[in-house]
This record gives sequence, structure tokens and C-alpha cells, in this order.
Amino acid sequence: MRLEQVQELVKPELAEFCRRYDAAIKTGKTPIVDQVIRFLSGRRGKMLRPTLTYLSARLLGDCNERTHFAAVVVELLHNATLLHDDVVDNSDRRRGLPSLNSMFGNKISVLFGDYLLANSLLSMLECGDARVFEVLARTARRLAKGELDQAARSKNLDMDEETYYRMVSNKTGALVAASCVLGGMSGGATDEQVEALRTFGEALGVAFQIQDDLLDYTGSASIIGKPVGGDLKERKITLPLLHAFSRSSASEVREMKRLITRPRMGDLSRVARFAVERGGVDYARARALDFSREALEALACFPASPVRDQLHAFSAFAVERSF
Amino acid sequence: MRLEQVQELVKPELAEFCRRYDAAIKTGKTPIVDQVIRFLSGRRGKMLRPTLTYLSARLLGDCNERTHFAAVVVELLHNATLLHDDVVDNSDRRRGLPSLNSMFGNKISVLFGDYLLANSLLSMLECGDARVFEVLARTARRLAKGELDQAARSKNLDMDEETYYRMVSNKTGALVAASCVLGGMSGGATDEQVEALRTFGEALGVAFQIQDDLLDYTGSASIIGKPVGGDLKERKITLPLLHAFSRSSASEVREMKRLITRPRMGDLSRVARFAVERGGVDYARARALDFSREALEALACFPASPVRDQLHAFSAFAVERSF
Repeated sequence: MRLEQVQELVKPELAEFCRRYDAAIKTGKTPIVDQVIRFLSGRRGKMLRPTLTYLSARLLGDCNERTHFAAVVVELLHNATLLHDDVVDNSDRRRGLPSLNSMFGNKISVLFGDYLLANSLLSMLECGDARVFEVLARTARRLAKGELDQAARSKNLDMDEETYYRMVSNKTGALVAASCVLGGMSGGATDEQVEALRTFGEALGVAFQIQDDLLDYTGSASIIGKPVGGDLKERKITLPLLHAFSRSSASEVREMKRLITRPRMGDLSRVARFAVERGGVDYARARALDFSREALEALACFPASPVRDQLHAFSAFAVERSF
Repeated sequence: MRLEQVQELVKPELAEFCRRYDAAIKTGKTPIVDQVIRFLSGRRGKMLRPTLTYLSARLLGDCNERTHFAAVVVELLHNATLLHDDVVDNSDRRRGLPSLNSMFGNKISVLFGDYLLANSLLSMLECGDARVFEVLARTARRLAKGELDQAARSKNLDMDEETYYRMVSNKTGALVAASCVLGGMSGGATDEQVEALRTFGEALGVAFQIQDDLLDYTGSASIIGKPVGGDLKERKITLPLLHAFSRSSASEVREMKRLITRPRMGDLSRVARFAVERGGVDYARARALDFSREALEALACFPASPVRDQLHAFSAFAVERSF
């Protein structure tokens, strides 16, 4: 399943989305803002979250003004966190191209992230729905807590599978769930339907992130758009290695952690091979599939339709993709 | 006029503010968040903005729930921008003590700033007033644009007085005005009164910032809590130097800009002396007084009262203080 196929059904909505997103951040008065916008417009990303917002709304009827607002607000929040993440992680590349911080410096990245956040507030205001606002405020808080938690943990390398799922859920599940929930709300979803969309989005987000984390062990830089092994370089311990640890002796684990802490040439590749050989990648792939299945099942309360089929296809795409 | 005297009238409100502010950011579940909160609780700052919110509300009657929410939201937004500023400016000190970024690193500072922003959203939500939300969203956007503008300009050293006032207004005027406006709104201010409070806050904020900028030329590090000449080190050209430039030949200006761009030992002190000798500090002091007077006059539409006297005293404090 290719992403373009999944997005085919909401192609007009996504075109409208691009127009509205650009309008939401334009100023015309602050030269640096316009420069950054031009730079970022060539890096729009895959628009996964807006796609989910539109598909979720279409489960219930046509997209409307509120759907567009929700899609824009969610993407603003997402892109703001990416800019701050790249500063925090010192990342040179994003979406296969040089990152904003690598070209404009950390200052501009931090401040432009704040600018996107402020614009997401203004879009929420225009939307004028208190429920939408509540979903977003809670999501923003979960995102920030999740990122803080992850940044704090990167020092000590201590982690267990439960903590990993909680962090992934805060980091990716929260915003993907919000994308679906807000799409549903804009279409007048019942409380039960909103809950189903939340479960769908959370599980899909976690599946998506696990896949992301395992691609860090198996992908190639030219395909996934960021350097392979980047997580290890940042001392991020994700599911493949975590599982490998659980099947190793205490001294083996200590040795691997030592290699991660003070890596010399080839050490990180050795850690990556260790994770693969102990079945860590296979295990992570199986868990991603579990979450993808959970996502799919959450949609059972909606009648069968081409739109629901596309959401099913989305959850398959999340764990089949190689980028 | 000492700040403590100005704050005397709203002492109980400020005590309640501290309790609510702490409650708004507490989690109890994320260790790093609790650590940072403990660190920051010893650095609460002067609570200038909450003081203005409470005094503005008291112009119209007693403080109420909405006043407390406004005070907390404004201070969350303010502290979030300070954390990001310190990262952007690479500042070691804040409020006379080591800054968060110097102790916990840039990662945690960026992310904790985001966490404070998310919490300000949640507080707005609890407040549940769309007008409050609109004021804050517009303020957040002006703040972010102002900071971006300033960061972008720090490279080329080109600046004129009009641009300076616009930047100061975006950077400090906007949030001080919001503090006053929201206080007034919580007390049921009429549209005319809201406008008066906005004018008061904008002018007061600009006066305050000009005084801040001139103290950078005349203050001592132990009093103002940050290194003297810090603005020059960050290549920030503020009013004292700007005025000195306007009274100098093109070649003198070029020479001073050269010293700022690639300073050797003693060069920045030389630039600072140049600004003082050409009357830059005196000029800036006169302009700060103009804005302080404008602030004072804006309150004429409120009947005379002890609270109004304290707001007058506040505008005097802004330009008399030496810290």
C-alpha cells in the first residue's frame, strides 16, 4: 500500500489544507519569517496528520470549515515540535533535506517553533470550539511532558518496555489521536465515535513510531531521510534494543551500554547488529503489527465504507512502509 | 519608590498567585519536570506582570477567579519566553542566579518552555473566556514575531529608532499590555477602559524595556542580575547606542560597528563609553520618561483611588529603578 493511494480520497481537501496552512503563518511584514516560510515550504512533509483528520471527518460526512481548522492547527503543532526536536537533538537533516536549525541556526528554529505555536492558538481561536481547544491543550501538554521525559532519560540509558510504550504514546500517539478525534468532532461524531477514533489514533501512532524506531536499525539513509543509527547516537534506547537486552545477560547489557555511552568507530554498528541478532527487530515488528491491528479493530463501530477502507489501509501502511 | 511598596496593595493576591502558579505546572509523575520546578521555584522573579493584572482588576472592584487565571496564564507565557530567550541568547544568568539552560542544558530549557506554554493553554481553557484567549493568542504571536525579528537583525547591526520602538513594543509592551487588559477584563472593564489599560500597559512596557536597555550601559552586574554590556556582546543595538550613532559621522558609526562585530579585549567598553559620551543614555532616559508619562495619562479615565495611585507609582518605578 502506497501513501499516495491512501491520500487519493482526500486529495482536494489536502490541496485546500496547503492553501490554508500557508495563509495561517504568512506575515508579509517580518522578512525573517517570510524567509523561513519559503525555506520550509519545500519541506512540507507527508501530511499524515491532516490526512487522518480529513479521513476521520469523512467517516461521518463531508469535510467542513471546522475540519480544515483542525487539520491546520494539528499540523502547526506538529511542525513546531519538530523544529524544537531538531534543536534538542541537534539534527542536521529532516525529511531527507538539511534541517532548519542546520541552515538558520538554533535561535531561529526555537523562535520559529514558538511562532508556529502562537499561530496554532490563533487558528484555534478562529475555530471557536472549546472542545477542540481542550483536546489540543491536553495534547500539547502530553507532547511536552513526553519530550522532557525522553530528554531526561537519554542520560542514564535505563528503560523498560512499559516506559517505552508510555513515551511513544506521549510523543506520537497523542498527536495522531488528536488528529483523528478532531476530524471526527468536526463531523459531529458521538462520544462513542470520538472514543473509537481516539483509540484508533493512539494505536496507529504507536505502531507508526515503533516502525520508525525499527527502521533506524534496518533502513537506509536515502530512504528514511535521516541518518541510520541516529537514535543510538543520541543514546535513545528503543524497542529493538530493549528487547535484545531482555534476552541477554546483565554483563552483556552493561557492555552494550558502555559502547553507547562512549562509542568509538564501529561501536554503534556493533550495538545495532546485536539488537538485530537477538531478535529485537523481529520483536518490534510484531508489536507494531499488534498495535496496527488494535487500530483497525477500533474502527469496527463505523459502518463499512470506502473511507473506512482507507483508514484500514493507513494502519497497514504504518507498519509496511520502509521510510 | 520601591517595588515592595507598589506590591503591598495586592500582597494577598500575589500569595494566592504563587499557590496557583505552582499548582498549574505540577505533575508529580515526571521526575524531570519536578526537578526543574524545584530549581525554578527559587527564581520566581519580581512578579511584575501578575502585580499589574491584580492592580488593573482592582481598579474596577475586587479580584476574582478570572483575575487569578489571567495572572497565572500571563506569567506562564512570560516565563516560557524567558527560558527560550536564554537558550537563544546563550545566557548563563537570569535574575541574578545561574539560568536553567546553564544548569540543565538547552534541551531541557527549550522543552520546559514548551511545557509552560502547554500549561498556559490549559489554564486558559479552565478560564473559559474567548476574549481572554484572543488577547493571549495575539500576544503570543507578537512576542514570537518580535523575537524572530530581533534574532534576525542581530547579524547586520542595521537599526533605526522606529524599528527599535516596534521591537521593544512587540517584546515587552505586548505582554505588559496583556497583563493589564486581562486584569481589567476580569473586573468587567468597558471597551473604553480596556483600551485605556492597553495603552497604559504598552507604554509602561516600552518605558520598562528602555530602562532595562540603558541599565545595560550604566548598571552593575550585582544589581541588575545579568552581566553589564550583555546586549553589546549579543550584538543587540539598543536606544543609547542608536542615538549616539545619529549624532556621529558615518565613519565613526562604521568604526563602532566594526568593534562590535569582532570585539577584542576592551572594545565593547569603548563602544559603551562612546554611547554615554554622545548623550545616548541621557536621551534614552528622557524617552523612557516620555513613555512613563504616556502610561500615567492613559489612566485618567479611571477615578482617583489608592489603586490608581499605585499604578502611577508603578510607572514611576519603571524608569527610576536601578535593577
